[in-house]
Amino acid sequence: MSKHYILKVSCDDRKGLVYKTSGIFYKQNFNMVENAEFVDSESRRFFMRSEVVGEVESDKLMADLRKALPENAQISFRPKIKKRIVILATKEYHCLGDLLLQAYFGDLEAEILAVISNHDILRGLVEKFGIPYHFVSHENMSRSKHEADIAEIIRSYEPDYLVLAKYMRILSPDFVSPYNNRIINIHHSFLPAFIGANPYRQAFERGVKIIGATAHFVSNELDEGPIIKQNITDVNHQKNPEALSKAGKDLEKVVLANALKLVFDERVFVHGNKTVIFD
Amino acid sequence: MSKHYILKVSCDDRKGLVYKTSGIFYKQNFNMVENAEFVDSESRRFFMRSEVVGEVESDKLMADLRKALPENAQISFRPKIKKRIVILATKEYHCLGDLLLQAYFGDLEAEILAVISNHDILRGLVEKFGIPYHFVSHENMSRSKHEADIAEIIRSYEPDYLVLAKYMRILSPDFVSPYNNRIINIHHSFLPAFIGANPYRQAFERGVKIIGATAHFVSNELDEGPIIKQNITDVNHQKNPEALSKAGKDLEKVVLANALKLVFDERVFVHGNKTVIFD
Amino acid sequence: MSKHYILKVSCDDRKGLVYKTSGIFYKQNFNMVENAEFVDSESRRFFMRSEVVGEVESDKLMADLRKALPENAQISFRPKIKKRIVILATKEYHCLGDLLLQAYFGDLEAEILAVISNHDILRGLVEKFGIPYHFVSHENMSRSKHEADIAEIIRSYEPDYLVLAKYMRILSPDFVSPYNNRIINIHHSFLPAFIGANPYRQAFERGVKIIGATAHFVSNELDEGPIIKQNITDVNHQKNPEALSKAGKDLEKVVLANALKLVFDERVFVHGNKTVIFD
Amino acid sequence: MSKHYILKVSCDDRKGLVYKTSGIFYKQNFNMVENAEFVDSESRRFFMRSEVVGEVESDKLMADLRKALPENAQISFRPKIKKRIVILATKEYHCLGDLLLQAYFGDLEAEILAVISNHDILRGLVEKFGIPYHFVSHENMSRSKHEADIAEIIRSYEPDYLVLAKYMRILSPDFVSPYNNRIINIHHSFLPAFIGANPYRQAFERGVKIIGATAHFVSNELDEGPIIKQNITDVNHQKNPEALSKAGKDLEKVVLANALKLVFDERVFVHGNKTVIFD
Repeated sequence: MSKHYILKVSCDDRKGLVYKTSGIFYKQNFNMVENAEFVDSESRRFFMRSEVVGEVESDKLMADLRKALPENAQISFRPKIKKRIVILATKEYHCLGDLLLQAYFGDLEAEILAVISNHDILRGLVEKFGIPYHFVSHENMSRSKHEADIAEIIRSYEPDYLVLAKYMRILSPDFVSPYNNRIINIHHSFLPAFIGANPYRQAFERGVKIIGATAHFVSNELDEGPIIKQNITDVNHQKNPEALSKAGKDLEKVVLANALKLVFDERVFVHGNKTVIFD
Repeated sequence: MSKHYILKVSCDDRKGLVYKTSGIFYKQNFNMVENAEFVDSESRRFFMRSEVVGEVESDKLMADLRKALPENAQISFRPKIKKRIVILATKEYHCLGDLLLQAYFGDLEAEILAVISNHDILRGLVEKFGIPYHFVSHENMSRSKHEADIAEIIRSYEPDYLVLAKYMRILSPDFVSPYNNRIINIHHSFLPAFIGANPYRQAFERGVKIIGATAHFVSNELDEGPIIKQNITDVNHQKNPEALSKAGKDLEKVVLANALKLVFDERVFVHGNKTVIFD
Repeated sequence: MSKHYILKVSCDDRKGLVYKTSGIFYKQNFNMVENAEFVDSESRRFFMRSEVVGEVESDKLMADLRKALPENAQISFRPKIKKRIVILATKEYHCLGDLLLQAYFGDLEAEILAVISNHDILRGLVEKFGIPYHFVSHENMSRSKHEADIAEIIRSYEPDYLVLAKYMRILSPDFVSPYNNRIINIHHSFLPAFIGANPYRQAFERGVKIIGATAHFVSNELDEGPIIKQNITDVNHQKNPEALSKAGKDLEKVVLANALKLVFDERVFVHGNKTVIFD
Repeated sequence: MSKHYILKVSCDDRKGLVYKTSGIFYKQNFNMVENAEFVDSESRRFFMRSEVVGEVESDKLMADLRKALPENAQISFRPKIKKRIVILATKEYHCLGDLLLQAYFGDLEAEILAVISNHDILRGLVEKFGIPYHFVSHENMSRSKHEADIAEIIRSYEPDYLVLAKYMRILSPDFVSPYNNRIINIHHSFLPAFIGANPYRQAFERGVKIIGATAHFVSNELDEGPIIKQNITDVNHQKNPEALSKAGKDLEKVVLANALKLVFDERVFVHGNKTVIFD
């Protein structure tokens, strides 16, 4: 049975990597649908992503790749399938609603397993789409207890990725670490400008003429993780913080959805604190 | 003789400001070419800019405006004329060259009186256009002495504005203060991201997906003055700092030139650390 | 009781229009929240929009305005209220879904009275939000009969505006004429490029490097009505028509929603085949 | 002696093309600096571009490539060197001036051999940079005679490319055909919108909210050649055709310069009436 696979390789650069990898595919009689390579000139790191269609003995192929590529190479070769995600949100609907719509109509390349929120405001929306909604209030509860309760719910769903769709609480390293490079957040500024709270108020105070939104992987440092996607829109002196926030909503939802498509389609490599993206 | 004038007013907001000001123009039989007002809702400050054509007794008009507007109103009413500017540059030609071209063909709304540089690299370019070039090396010289020498040259030209066209030295408050809101700088990042030295190196390290340029008035704090214009361009993981710098050159020259057009056309009000721009 | 009103005036330009209109507001002791004027230099047409807050005798005010303004002036002075709309759609969910979400959470400045479609695909989505869904198949039916059936449904709702959210059938002049400047369409190209069917296929064939979307009022000529809003996104040779269409969905939904906000907020004047927009 | 080379291949797609080509480089012990491939899914055409550094026997390498690749493959393998260009202009300075500056400071990757114009306006500018200026008036001269005179001048310089930097006359097929895919034009609209004369007037009449510029190869059909680069800027109802034209100048010069960099760096393949660009 012919199937669609994605290969991702990253390893130290050396001569012949493209030759050797493409040779393995050629000999296995794959049809290469898409192929891209990149070498980071500072770190001498090689990145390659291939989409292939064909019948494959995965074990044999991985063995061949392991033999051909440097010892410390990171290799993944997997069928192209929908990812399983859990979404965390707080009060705002725009990013969450956009993802619910896209998932409902099959455009997200992911199944939304559940939505968790520290408020009960978005329940009505989520349940319209038949998706479980978990309200875990943070009131009268320690941060660690709140996170532990959420983590337990998440674990029960075994998601591939967590998506922070305007989840307005800071996550502790303990929470983040099991999901290394698997938590995607949307920050409502053009990072690294306006890290932290109230970026639209900060943007207003600074008098910027452009605002932005940034989707990034979550690392232990606040708003410091690898950036996946950014976009901007022009503003002017007429916009107060509330108007900036409204203008930013379209940016945020589109940037987050675009970033997720790249991640779910396995187009994103994390490289130190940066990303290499083949799109 | 019929002439083109620009009125700029800023004052505390109160009822009837538009009515009273437009009444003065109406009674003087002016032709109003363009008119715009704005009230900043946080500070309750009123801003108004009008372009009018007609014969005018300036003294009478100013007296009428003074009487109609609040006591502390800032009022300027001047014929629309080319501004006189001095440009400071270091080694890079792209912003300077763009301004020389535009001035040479009459598109800048300003006369370039002189170019001053701490290097002698750009002399050939500048002298092609018949403009005086002053090379003031900073080597073996204290910062204050270097600035004093430059300041003396500038004073001799009596410019309306100083333009920092990739002038790569930090200016002291003593140098800046006589030219309050009259020095325009181009910074090669999307401020407030990447303040200070080597913004393209900083952008590379952070792995941003968009780079920007910012034209702003120079205040005493580095890269903190009121922003006039910003623009951005998309980048990706393939760009090293040198490539980012090249990609940024077109941005920088266009953003600086656009900002200058706004300033020279008297469309920009400075309001605290921000700008109000009627464009 | 203090209320929020919007004044829109368009008339032949003459001296003193701003003075006279602002005078009326001043004497009625209104608080002017926002004010903008524009004179089209080719047609010598004057446009003015004001938002005011206060207690008002509407009849007295309209009488004063009629007296002060030229005889043929178009004047509207109305409380700022939510508009009533009917949406027409076909099979695609992205624009419709975005509007349903925004209306549900109170961000649309409009009430969606009903959705009408020539397919039954979107019923599930629409009914989640408790909004009537009318499926009017065009199969085995003349165009005029189909339009008449739809028109009758629309009339029953007495909407202020019709929104074509990817409604893929051409409307006849008979259908359009009762809703002059009250039907807004989203066209999936950067008009006037790629008028008519399959614009993404056309864009692919032409090899453009940028695609766009255009929201416009519907006139009798296909894709020729006054443009309200446009936006674009970069594409490259890798995108086939299907990929262009996917890339265009985010554009389309955001451009349509932004255009509707401008229209519903009464910021848009139609001037011949163009628009004057105060935003 | 180690050198920098660029390989460009286009041919019908078949399995193993990447494998075979990369194998040739691997065995010759080249260092691959950059590599990219693309298969057009409609035409099943394969495109590949590689930058390599090393010592090379060009004849041996071409022979190996010819043997490995399909019979009708188009292959070029050349040292990376500056291109030789002739620029045609009319009256406007902004594109020409930008190219002169970039060439003067070594940023263009091309040598400007000469500038030809049907007016004498730009001579002063061009001669500042020590470049020959040929004024060939079209007055009192047939189109064919005028073109023949220009063609003769061009031939004497043996350029790699002709650049139309706002050359405002239509070129006949006889003129164009010897320079197939070697003439680059900047058109002042977002093609295919506003083909032909006065695009800014057309844009004004249509009331667009965005204007654009398009750099493209010149084919026999007016404004129909393969598009290399496009960019846009927002406009509004306040801009008359003259203001649109001014706003478009920055677009035009940047789009043309960017397109030329892609072409001169051999990143552009012409594929039917479209381009495949590896950037």
